[in-house]
Amino acid sequence: MPLAFPITNGMVRILKAGGQLEEFKQEKLERSLLKAGAGRTIASEIIGHIERELKEGMSTSQIYKHAFFLLEKKDKPVATRYSLRRAILELGPSGFPFEDFVSEILREKGFTTEVDVTLKGECAKHEIDVVAYNENKLMMVEAKFHNELGIKTDLKTILYVKARFDDIKPLTFNYGGVRAFNENWIITNTKFTESTIGYGKCKNMIMIGWNYPGKGNLQDMIEDSGLHPLTCLSSLSQRQKGELLRKGIVLCRKLKDNYQELESLGIKKGGVDEVNKEIGLVCGL
Amino acid sequence: MPLAFPITNGMVRILKAGGQLEEFKQEKLERSLLKAGAGRTIASEIIGHIERELKEGMSTSQIYKHAFFLLEKKDKPVATRYSLRRAILELGPSGFPFEDFVSEILREKGFTTEVDVTLKGECAKHEIDVVAYNENKLMMVEAKFHNELGIKTDLKTILYVKARFDDIKPLTFNYGGVRAFNENWIITNTKFTESTIGYGKCKNMIMIGWNYPGKGNLQDMIEDSGLHPLTCLSSLSQRQKGELLRKGIVLCRKLKDNYQELESLGIKKGGVDEVNKEIGLVCGL
Repeated sequence: MPLAFPITNGMVRILKAGGQLEEFKQEKLERSLLKAGAGRTIASEIIGHIERELKEGMSTSQIYKHAFFLLEKKDKPVATRYSLRRAILELGPSGFPFEDFVSEILREKGFTTEVDVTLKGECAKHEIDVVAYNENKLMMVEAKFHNELGIKTDLKTILYVKARFDDIKPLTFNYGGVRAFNENWIITNTKFTESTIGYGKCKNMIMIGWNYPGKGNLQDMIEDSGLHPLTCLSSLSQRQKGELLRKGIVLCRKLKDNYQELESLGIKKGGVDEVNKEIGLVCGL
Repeated sequence: MPLAFPITNGMVRILKAGGQLEEFKQEKLERSLLKAGAGRTIASEIIGHIERELKEGMSTSQIYKHAFFLLEKKDKPVATRYSLRRAILELGPSGFPFEDFVSEILREKGFTTEVDVTLKGECAKHEIDVVAYNENKLMMVEAKFHNELGIKTDLKTILYVKARFDDIKPLTFNYGGVRAFNENWIITNTKFTESTIGYGKCKNMIMIGWNYPGKGNLQDMIEDSGLHPLTCLSSLSQRQKGELLRKGIVLCRKLKDNYQELESLGIKKGGVDEVNKEIGLVCGL
């Protein structure tokens, strides 16, 4: 018989992505399901199902996969939203750089962007992942991708981003007019450590993590504007996703009604309609 | 027959610690032997020997070991000096932290030191490897150890060290009187990249690497004061070295004439004299 609920009060510890054991809390699972848009009834059904099969030491990833499997049968677009974080992780192994994804997001927000820029500061040349600007803002963006959940962006990272900005800030550059950088951004698909958040706030940096800050975090930025990466789509195969990413097509909205592109993947007419429908549901297009 | 000198002009490429192939240059080997104190005659004998056995793709580490083996038969103290860099590397696997070694060096230079200090800066708490001070100086030291040759300390590292100093500099601390930090050090057993050196100079940081700067580098600091780690000694076994390091005994000068400590390692009277003699030769004590 499996070792389920071995501890008093029904507490089961699950294994987090970072390797620590943590008490399983149904509120957390519920929150993530509701956040993805699942109705209360569906959420409790899934939680009930998961709880019956919970075992001490089960990984959050196993639980996630199980919940996703159950959710997909009940509400596909919600399941896709639920899997958004994993879809971002899939950008890594695909070889598609996270900075290009960040650049796409900022362009959709109305900024002009350039990726992989070398800027000469007062004391050194620096590699900047993304330079983005509009009329009022000229910002340098560090796009920090980790291909494992559970890793946090730490103090050393934000310290070097700060020192780099300090070295560049006194100088002017020609981006939509000759001017100095006035914003220092870091965007990551991970969480930040507490001390990183404290330091960044104190130094007026713009920090955007997976679910930091409460409003306007990476997940919000993607969902509010329907900027989902095509790795979200379950109607495309891994091979088809890889082919598109290699062509520089990252966002699923770029595929919407793009019959030529979809057919070039070898998808038949009916299949193309199915992909289009999923894009519509997932991105609200 | 081995594939020796397969390229015109007798060029053989050797494998550097970082994984790149590089043309073997006898001047480089000669320089390192002379630097260790080998006479010109011994140096040319060893180079001649090595060149006869050189093969394409041989690693610098193999060449080093061979040269050391030959040198040890001719001049033991010079051989020990030659192996100093490896001895520092051996501190890593022994579990003895490099910051403790750096602290020992700075104490021998007359500074009061503390290791693993947490300081509250303006915007974050920071872990400082070594705080060292005397009447005029209060310095924070980042002790950066890499257990592989060929790795270089890079720009990101020196950037975070700079940002950390900037966060701490405006505040005062009680180290030999209430005062602010006035020096920002980084000491490493590796080389620095060029851009790191440029940046650090420009920002008035004190950078000490294996062979940077030309005078007063880590090797000089050790040799000038006879601050060799006991991992240098060939008359002690790995087990004996490990036992001493675990007790916090790092420098071989601490062992000099320390009959009690040496005998507690299970070394017989004659052996103790031999170790003492090697310490005298190696450290000039």
